Amino acid sequence: MTIDPVALTQDLIRCPSVTPADAGALGVLQRVLEQMGFTCTRLVFEEAGTDPVDNLYARLGTGSPNFCFAGHTDVVPVGDAAAWTVDPFAAEIINGKLYGRGTSDMKGAIAAFTSAVKSFLDRNGTPDGSISLLITGDEEGPSINGTRKVLDWMQANGEVIDACLVGEPTNPRVMGDMMKIGRRGSVTATLTAYGAQGHVAYPHLADNPLPRLTKALSMLADSPLDEGTPHFQPSTLAITTIDVGNPASNVIPAKGTAKFNIRFNDLHTPKSLEAHILDVLEEVGGTWDLKMAVSGEAFLTPPGALVATVAGAVTAVTGKTPELSTSGGTSDARFIKNFCPVVEFGLVGQTMHKVDEHVDVADIRTLAAIYDRVLADFFGKAAA
Amino acid sequence: MTIDPVALTQDLIRCPSVTPADAGALGVLQRVLEQMGFTCTRLVFEEAGTDPVDNLYARLGTGSPNFCFAGHTDVVPVGDAAAWTVDPFAAEIINGKLYGRGTSDMKGAIAAFTSAVKSFLDRNGTPDGSISLLITGDEEGPSINGTRKVLDWMQANGEVIDACLVGEPTNPRVMGDMMKIGRRGSVTATLTAYGAQGHVAYPHLADNPLPRLTKALSMLADSPLDEGTPHFQPSTLAITTIDVGNPASNVIPAKGTAKFNIRFNDLHTPKSLEAHILDVLEEVGGTWDLKMAVSGEAFLTPPGALVATVAGAVTAVTGKTPELSTSGGTSDARFIKNFCPVVEFGLVGQTMHKVDEHVDVADIRTLAAIYDRVLADFFGKAAA
Repeated sequence: MTIDPVALTQDLIRCPSVTPADAGALGVLQRVLEQMGFTCTRLVFEEAGTDPVDNLYARLGTGSPNFCFAGHTDVVPVGDAAAWTVDPFAAEIINGKLYGRGTSDMKGAIAAFTSAVKSFLDRNGTPDGSISLLITGDEEGPSINGTRKVLDWMQANGEVIDACLVGEPTNPRVMGDMMKIGRRGSVTATLTAYGAQGHVAYPHLADNPLPRLTKALSMLADSPLDEGTPHFQPSTLAITTIDVGNPASNVIPAKGTAKFNIRFNDLHTPKSLEAHILDVLEEVGGTWDLKMAVSGEAFLTPPGALVATVAGAVTAVTGKTPELSTSGGTSDARFIKNFCPVVEFGLVGQTMHKVDEHVDVADIRTLAAIYDRVLADFFGKAAA
Repeated sequence: MTIDPVALTQDLIRCPSVTPADAGALGVLQRVLEQMGFTCTRLVFEEAGTDPVDNLYARLGTGSPNFCFAGHTDVVPVGDAAAWTVDPFAAEIINGKLYGRGTSDMKGAIAAFTSAVKSFLDRNGTPDGSISLLITGDEEGPSINGTRKVLDWMQANGEVIDACLVGEPTNPRVMGDMMKIGRRGSVTATLTAYGAQGHVAYPHLADNPLPRLTKALSMLADSPLDEGTPHFQPSTLAITTIDVGNPASNVIPAKGTAKFNIRFNDLHTPKSLEAHILDVLEEVGGTWDLKMAVSGEAFLTPPGALVATVAGAVTAVTGKTPELSTSGGTSDARFIKNFCPVVEFGLVGQTMHKVDEHVDVADIRTLAAIYDRVLADFFGKAAA
């Protein structure tokens, strides 16, 4: 008996799992997986100052290789509830489209993968290896008690994954447009230049930090970090604010603070970027404070077996050759990349995080077919 | 009969002429001058949005040359009244020091000059020329209804002055230290760089104005305006503030504003400085708004007859060779320099504008002797 990925998506949507709430979503999934023979482990993590978060690791089989599907059941808030034309958690289908918070990002993909595993097993029996799902409830939140801690738990318990497919929505417009084989990293730097206050008429008695600050910022903004790499666009540095707040036009201020964000490719790490900034500061001279807030590191899964398998499955089902992209923001793939090759492919993301989030019902079935084909190709079994 | 400059200073101090109030100060002076034969003209000026201000132009004689003494009877506010150890308007003498608001800046000098004229006249009779006093009540205020308008009135009425001595306190520590032969100019620039807002992940869709702003400021701050001139220190440019106020570290802002103050010597004018800034902005490119607020132009009375006369009188009385300086802030000399050579010499300025403002009683008598000597040398008459 097959699993209808559309119906399962609807069951998941009807759990209002606005991050960090679970609202029964993992339980819905766990029941279906256990019926298929998966061993399910629920992992609740918390730490001081954060909400406890429920996560699920499910595995079918004990052998290698272990193919892992990763995703999240938590969703972003509804936003302007009055602006929705449907109940965000009713999972209504209107004119071939399934509406609801989390349809695109990313309960539809979880349902599609679950359905794909069932089809694959029905056709080929248990593979020579394992299939697993790593599902978190903390991807849309602070990402502290979610995928990162599940991966730590897995490592501590000898749970090895050999390849991972993240079901985030990756297609800008239609199924088959794009898959992600990496992501740029992101750091925000807060830079303060220090000097000594004084009167503008007697600058030799003061030490104005602002010429040093503007010079350092100008040098950082003017020198390209790189020219891009085969799979990444050039890294970018954007000064976002400079604030001194000195109301007296005859007073030299004692300090000035600037912030800038760097979106960086696989030529850099937060450490190498910090070293680059410190080099510039040393060249300029003076006293500084530099704080680096890392949102994510850059990573790339270079074209190889996993990329070829997923891209091939997309082409086989949709007839399109997906762009191999590293664009956009961050995802939990930034944690998984430390353990095994990881790529991302899911539904169309046009309405994610927006009012009236929806996906084409047909796309969910297309995605299930693609995932089924990925499993078949990965394990060298017959496609549907 | 001589005029005691100390007693006259006390009479003036006891008029609490906190700018723009006159409080009888000009009347005290006018009575003494009229007794000496001066023709006195009181000139009240006002314009929309300003307080009316009382001024005095007094002239003895009708011939040329006309030697003018310039000063102001208005004083700055008391400040922290509780911190004074004396009544700021009681003009008490304690241990040889005369205390009160305006003793140093600059009622003592007005009294000293008035006393000097009497001594000079008593000794030499009326000179072959004229002696005049230009006394304003708007030097410590906005300087709109004071010296500038008196000079305009004088020009309109055929009143020519040929040399001017401003009685501002010029000595840093002791009588004879320093006279002023010019002043640096001062302008404050407000510079705004414009761009287009956007998301830091997509900088090609935005136009960040901050790299242009930091580059322009860095260029302006790093390139010396000059290396100084024989009588001026190098001009200086001090960035005083930069303010963007963008709280979102993932957003590129649409604009940023900076302010900087330039203290400039006789190689520059506000117009030439504006041209220099516009050159830098053109080199950097982009859309800008530049506003220049001029506090005063630079000026110099090059060493010559007037400077030699005043410096010689200082040396004759004190035994010291005064430094010929152009340092410090601005004074009404910036208006007078358009009409005739002007220099400045007065009392010790250490306590001006401060709590417990005071001068040595002996310094007032020394200053009267110096002014007497200036008149004698200027008119080629016998010194005391």
